[in-house]
Parts: sequence; structure tokens; C-alpha cells
Amino acid sequence: MKHARSPLAQPFPDLPLIAGVSPRVARARYKDWDRCDLSYVELSKGTSVAGVTTTSKCPSPEVEWCRSALKHGTARALLVSAGNANAFTGGKGRAAVEMLVATASDRLGCAREEIFVSATGVIGVPLPHDKASAGLEAAFDADPCSWRDLADAIGTTDTFAKAATASAMIGETRVELCGVIKGSGMIAPDMATMLGYIFTDAAIAPALLQQMLSAANRTTFSCITVDSDTSTSDTVLAFATGQAGHAPLVSFDEPGADAFAAALTDLCRQLAHLVVRDGEGATKFIEVRVSGAESDASAHRIALSIANSPLVKTAIAGEDANWGRVVMAVGKAGEPADRDQLSIRFGGIEVAAEGVVVDGYDEAPVAAHLKGQEIVIGVDIGLGNGVATVWTCDLTHGYISINADYRS
Amino acid sequence: MKHARSPLAQPFPDLPLIAGVSPRVARARYKDWDRCDLSYVELSKGTSVAGVTTTSKCPSPEVEWCRSALKHGTARALLVSAGNANAFTGGKGRAAVEMLVATASDRLGCAREEIFVSATGVIGVPLPHDKASAGLEAAFDADPCSWRDLADAIGTTDTFAKAATASAMIGETRVELCGVIKGSGMIAPDMATMLGYIFTDAAIAPALLQQMLSAANRTTFSCITVDSDTSTSDTVLAFATGQAGHAPLVSFDEPGADAFAAALTDLCRQLAHLVVRDGEGATKFIEVRVSGAESDASAHRIALSIANSPLVKTAIAGEDANWGRVVMAVGKAGEPADRDQLSIRFGGIEVAAEGVVVDGYDEAPVAAHLKGQEIVIGVDIGLGNGVATVWTCDLTHGYISINADYRS
Repeated sequence: MKHARSPLAQPFPDLPLIAGVSPRVARARYKDWDRCDLSYVELSKGTSVAGVTTTSKCPSPEVEWCRSALKHGTARALLVSAGNANAFTGGKGRAAVEMLVATASDRLGCAREEIFVSATGVIGVPLPHDKASAGLEAAFDADPCSWRDLADAIGTTDTFAKAATASAMIGETRVELCGVIKGSGMIAPDMATMLGYIFTDAAIAPALLQQMLSAANRTTFSCITVDSDTSTSDTVLAFATGQAGHAPLVSFDEPGADAFAAALTDLCRQLAHLVVRDGEGATKFIEVRVSGAESDASAHRIALSIANSPLVKTAIAGEDANWGRVVMAVGKAGEPADRDQLSIRFGGIEVAAEGVVVDGYDEAPVAAHLKGQEIVIGVDIGLGNGVATVWTCDLTHGYISINADYRS
Repeated sequence: MKHARSPLAQPFPDLPLIAGVSPRVARARYKDWDRCDLSYVELSKGTSVAGVTTTSKCPSPEVEWCRSALKHGTARALLVSAGNANAFTGGKGRAAVEMLVATASDRLGCAREEIFVSATGVIGVPLPHDKASAGLEAAFDADPCSWRDLADAIGTTDTFAKAATASAMIGETRVELCGVIKGSGMIAPDMATMLGYIFTDAAIAPALLQQMLSAANRTTFSCITVDSDTSTSDTVLAFATGQAGHAPLVSFDEPGADAFAAALTDLCRQLAHLVVRDGEGATKFIEVRVSGAESDASAHRIALSIANSPLVKTAIAGEDANWGRVVMAVGKAGEPADRDQLSIRFGGIEVAAEGVVVDGYDEAPVAAHLKGQEIVIGVDIGLGNGVATVWTCDLTHGYISINADYRS
């Protein structure tokens, strides 16, 4: 089932090649379609790897494999299957992962822990060995492909291909970062997992790369939500080939580390926003900014309560300046809040302050802001210095059509 | 804005009169409508009262008043305004509550803490003193009305009038319980608060009545959700006039106490289900039963994660036996769970067991169950003895139409 391109879609950017990264795609035909659905990215020896995975208590075997392989710290290849998530498939699912890992590691003559795998698509159906191995063999023999081909091959229900780039100076060396991502929110008819892959020619020790990715994740991928549902397979991996030639970074104290971390965070934010922009049925991109909470963690929970509220999301879909629904969402978050200290802004325009609507409130400019595609909801709790920003989309008939007007 | 009667609506039941309870309704005209929207229920002297209110951190002044008045333990009157929630109105809202309380307590010559008030409807607009006091004066002079009139007068976006009854034997005395409730889920264009009122002629000491209502609430009102949003004004009050003539119950050790508590819990469950049956856009009534969790509390959190998942709710709307979405919702609950121990049932039919789809799974009987209006999702976590049941409804285009195709 293919859906119309999101009105919030962005054009595919120009991405530079990354030395030591060789992506290839092939047709495993996990579904009855004629498209590349198996991706194989070969990485030069000594590539560092870091990753973050779903918080789900029922993760896929691919996620379990990545979690354990990440302890090894280096990577030689990434394999991504699209069309079959291989989740909730018991021992058969684990066997499929082991087969793919063994095939790739035997070919590259590397440790099994240097092979990283992901899968996205239908759940409950074990990844078919024959299709997976035939697809992998075809990918081995394929020519290197473009970033666009890779972004297309990892996609499932996505309505547009998603990628971003950034760069940083490490000493005198300019390093490049490229990322591709798929997902149309946490959910989809076939459970659109968020899978993101970041590649850089920088030389970063695995422990430092993990430290940087985990920090970036906290303010980017962990701050997006389409409908509060969480895939069993969400995975973001970062690979640093070290081909740029500078001395490897091992700690934040070294020159260039902060610059690289900033570029990585910027890239993660771009990729995270693209997922929200492909949120199912989305017509508005919503930024929720919370300030004045008792702590940043409290602000984050309040922001997610607002961003996950169907009441708030449908109000934005209806271009309705319904600040009462924002009050409701703050109240239900369970975090410290004082009704009479709250202030609420839409698009920077104060609507309510100190617990009541502002004197002479003029809805016209607020209504104008809500007619746009980029909505900003600001809430000040008035209690402390805690701040947080999260991103989401509106909740529309399109969402229901995609998820309810459907049979598995 | 009036919506079509819910397909899950129930006929209004026959309710007995309750000695010591005199309901009256009048037109305060809080909105531009010609209907009774102010309810005044006079209660005989010595009536015990108990209550539970919203967990929102931003409650309405009515909720704050009820919370403090409940410490007093007795009630002489209940006032309910429909059409204006008086929430998020600062000092003006508090003043309106004090005015209504003063007017009623002066008339009855009782303590102010014996007057209970609720309001539901538009938020952010202080309850207008003139309309409220004129409506209250008209109610004072009105003839006693029927339960149906009361149920209609407290309603806002409800699509059908909701009431239930139960009875119990306390010693040789039969006592009657009647309840009315309004709300179409936690939410609505004007924030459809859940307001419930229970009246009985039994004689129950306030502390015991509170103990019974709090216990009943935990397995009834606290176990329903339409979309996870929580009103700033939710309130359930129980009034016991003691007119039945039996010796007052003061502890659970006395004969009849268990029977009354059971009848109260049954009444609360009936009322809670009626709210779900009027859930916005609802076409299916869904019972989620979780067993095998590490504790009852853990089972409850898992059940709510399933019941609040847009992915699960849209699947049911689509009559789709998408058990993968149930796995997802279990996984995201954050509670102890082992993917390979999970089993899932639809309508009692096992779909998945020990982490994989059952051998020879036949979807036909499951599909037949999902075509009905009463859906049962069963999940066994396989770890312990914790159990919980919650009730919700499906998520449909009707929900979006009510909440997004709307301007405040």
C-alpha cells in the first residue's frame, strides 16, 4: 500500500561520498514488489561503530544482535532488510539473523560482531532464508549505489526518501557526515520502524562515538513522536571509517571533538525532523517548547504529554487555537505544574498568562500562524529553569485512513 | 455542535426514586441554547458524601472546592453547570464558585462545605455570575425532575443520556443506588469532562463511603480511557442520604457492608462503561484483559498502554487482527515483559503463544469476532500473577471529525 507523498516532504539533498563506505542494494523480494529491498553497506577495516536502539521490552532479534555486537566497537558491514521486520518470530527469526551475519562475516573474513543487521516491515513472519541469502549474494555482486538508492531501498511505507549531511573541521581536516533514515513515525500498517544510519570519514574511537551519539539522541530522535507508539525495531547506527586521515579522536578534550559532536547532533536533528515530516497523515510540523519546568527531564515529559495528546494534535489539524487542550495536556503529564503560573504561546504569540487568557486576546494572528505548515507551541510552567523541545505532527483523517482503512 | 447518537448507546434504564434526593433543573443559558443546563440536587440533612476527582495538576476551581469540602463529610446540595467548565479562569472562576456555594448554603442554612459544585463545557471563560445565579434561583423554584431530566441537564457533547442502578440488602433493608454520568471520553471539542453522581438511601458513614468509592474507582473509572487525555474537571461524587432506615454502617466488618460495596462497584462499572460507549467516534467497545504480569499494577500499566495505543485502536476500527500492534503496545509499556513468553487472544481465540503465531492459525473466527461491536483483547505476559482489565473504544474518522473538523 503506497500513500501520497507527504505535504511536508523535503527534496533529497546532495550528499558527498564518504571514503570507506560502499553501499549496494539488491532485490530480495521480501514482498511481491519489484524494488530493491536488501541493502548491504561495506565499511573499510577499522570502522568505529556506535548505536542506539528501541526502548521496547519486545525488541526484534536484529535489535538484540546489534546491542550485543556494539560492545565490539568496530564494523565491516551493515545489512538492512525492508518488507519483513523479522520481529516476534521466535527462534526462526534469530536463526535468520545468524545466517545473514555468518554469510557476510565469512565473505569479509571479519568477526561476526562486525556485521550489523536491521529489518523493517511485516512482523510475525520469520525472514525467509532463501530470499535473504539470494538477495545478499546479489548485493555482494552489485555495483556501489547512490545515497538516494540506499535511502529508497531501506524504506517501507515512507512517502519520500530521507537523507541529510553535515561537516566539521577536526584540526585542519574537514570531515563529512551523511545520514539516511526511514520511518513515517513510530508506526504504520506494517509497523514503520525508524531505522537511521550515519556515515562519516572522521576517525573517532568507538567509546567516544557512542558517547556523542547517545548525547545527540537525547535531544533529537528521543524528542520526536508521531503518535506515542514505539516500534520493536527502532535502530540508529553511526559508522566512522577514519578515512579522512586526521589523528583519531578519543576524548572530548581533543580539538575538533566538540565541532564533530555538534555536526553529529545537527545531522541527527535533521534526520529526526524528516521522520516527523513523513508522519502518517501529517499536514503540520509541530514544535513544542516547554520552559520554566522544575527540571529538563520534567520539561521533556510535559512536552511529550502535549505532543502525544490526540486532543492537541487534532486541534492543530483543525487550525484551532484551542489552548485549553494544551492546559489539559500539561495537567495530565503528572509533573509539577501550577495552573495559575502557566503561560501558553502559539507561534510566539502569548495566548494565556498566569493561568488566564491574556487581556484583549486577539486570535487573528494566532489563527494565521495555525494556517501554516510549521507550528510552534510554547508553554512556560513558571516554576523553574527546566527546558525541553520536542517535535511531532498533527493527527488527521489521513492517519486514520492509513491505519484503520486497512486489513493485514 | 451535536453529534449523531453513538452506535454503542444504551437505552435509558428505569431508576427508582431515592428518599432524600430531590433533583431540579433550570436554564442558566450558559450557551446560546434552549435547554436545562444548571442542575440542583437537594439532599436531606445528614447525607454522607464521598468523592474522587481528576489527577490533573491543573484542576478547575470546582474540583479544588470539592476536594476541600469532602473533608467535611456531609452534603446538602449538588450544583452542576453544563456549557462552561469555569476551568483556567483564575480568581474570577474561584469567585463564581464561592458565589454559588454561598447562595445555596444561605438558602439551606447549612455549612458552605455541604454544597458541592461541578462545571463542564468551554474552558477559559469564567462562569458568568448573572446567568449562574439566575439559573440557580430558577432551580430553587422548579419542581423536582426525573433522573432522565437530570442526566440530560448535566450533559454537553454526550450523544445519549447515561444512568444506571443497583441495589443491595443491608440486614433486612433493601437499599437502592442510582447514578447519572456525563462524558464522551476524557475529551471533546469543549473538553467533555466526566462528571458522575451516585445517590443512595443507604446510611453509610462518610469515611466508609469514601473507602468504598475509592476502591470501586480503582477498578472502574480508573480503568477506562478513550484517548489518554484527562480533563481538568473529572469528578465522581457519591451521596448516601441514610433514609432507608437501617442502622448506619461505619465499618466493613458490619453485615451488609460487603454487599453494598459490591453494588456500588457494579454501579460504577456500569457508569464507566457508558462513558466509553459514548467515546467520540466509537464504533467498538474494547475490553483489554492482561494476565501473567509481575503485579496487578504492572498489568494495569500494560493494559492502558494497549488501550491507549492509536495503532491498536485503529486496527480494531479496521477490524484487523493485527496482533503485532498489541506486541508493540506491550513492549512500549516499559513494564517487565518477555517477548518469547507473550500470548495474545482476540475474543478468547489464541493468536500468538510463546512469542510466535500459533501453529495453523485460522484468522476466520478472529475476523468474525472483530466484526462485532464488543471486542475482547487478551494478553498473557507469562511472568507472574498480575491481572488487570481496562475498557476503551476504537479510533475512527468520527473521532477526527469531532475534534479536528471544528473551530473553537
